[in-house]
Amino acid sequence: MYPESLQNLIECFKFLPGIGEKTAERLAFSILDMSEERTEYFEESIRSAKKNMHLCPICNSLTDQEKCNICSSDNRDDSFLCVVEDTKSVFLFEKLGMFKGKYHVIKGLISPKEGISPDDIELGKLIDRIKTSKFKEIILAFKPSIEGETTSLYIKRILGDLDIKISKIASGIPIGADMEYIDAMTLERALLDRKSVE
Amino acid sequence: MYPESLQNLIECFKFLPGIGEKTAERLAFSILDMSEERTEYFEESIRSAKKNMHLCPICNSLTDQEKCNICSSDNRDDSFLCVVEDTKSVFLFEKLGMFKGKYHVIKGLISPKEGISPDDIELGKLIDRIKTSKFKEIILAFKPSIEGETTSLYIKRILGDLDIKISKIASGIPIGADMEYIDAMTLERALLDRKSVE
Repeated sequence: MYPESLQNLIECFKFLPGIGEKTAERLAFSILDMSEERTEYFEESIRSAKKNMHLCPICNSLTDQEKCNICSSDNRDDSFLCVVEDTKSVFLFEKLGMFKGKYHVIKGLISPKEGISPDDIELGKLIDRIKTSKFKEIILAFKPSIEGETTSLYIKRILGDLDIKISKIASGIPIGADMEYIDAMTLERALLDRKSVE
Repeated sequence: MYPESLQNLIECFKFLPGIGEKTAERLAFSILDMSEERTEYFEESIRSAKKNMHLCPICNSLTDQEKCNICSSDNRDDSFLCVVEDTKSVFLFEKLGMFKGKYHVIKGLISPKEGISPDDIELGKLIDRIKTSKFKEIILAFKPSIEGETTSLYIKRILGDLDIKISKIASGIPIGADMEYIDAMTLERALLDRKSVE
């Protein structure tokens, strides 16, 4: 229906997550409206991001340097390791700016249902890193879910013999949320993990 | 905060309409996850769309041919001209498949408030085309709004002397809409334009 050059661009936008037909059309039209300078910058940014971004050999986070800026920093606390399920979580924590330790990114979470095993998410690399480092506490920061729990328990079991504290981030009702919109599992978790009021 | 190559790509996505910080981050990360083949196709599609798409010299619609496929078709009814405010509207009507006449795309709508005059939207070109063609009816298909009304009235006034019917598409309550969500102007229009039940 659309001219071919436009249709191809619409199809490209539809490859992106959460972008349906209508939004893809809107975005493709907006590209046609942009200055040539800007669309060339867009092309160049896609090319450059694909070319330069790679996994940090130490923590698996994305970086365009040899090692990521956290692994290569002298100002991070080597006692704490925060284990996350994807690179995006690293940036989320860094935006928060509260955590001053190191990170390790695993490749997703264990999911028997979807056939994802500890090997698939490269837990071996994490375990090796922990065993050859001097971390005092490992903080597991996965999304609260069956997969998150399974992965946490697996890591805890493997590292159980070492003299390292293993913790996980709290789950419960998000601050500011309306109680009526909270799902049953979250409510149950919030009740089980209740804390005494001081 | 993000590595530069990634940050640039995020900024590019933020240029797109309706794409905020969070969505731009999600889309940029998804580019990193795509195969190189696919991202190269993405770059190529942006380049090719920008290079090949241009305005049809007759109707101002977007095309990658010399003339758009509607203007160059022998199977369209030369008696009807549908005037729309952007190229996207042409494709909307074509998807519907009901209209078999020709189109003319003006560059937006007259808006005294935003300082957009008849010259800015190239109404002269439309008027010239109508005066040198054999259209029997001009159908104005602008969005129902003050700007749409103003533009319709202006065109009607300019063409008033010619022996051509000038109509505009109906506005009113959309099919299937809940009455309580209809805004006052639409309701008023629906009441004024009421039709006898047959």
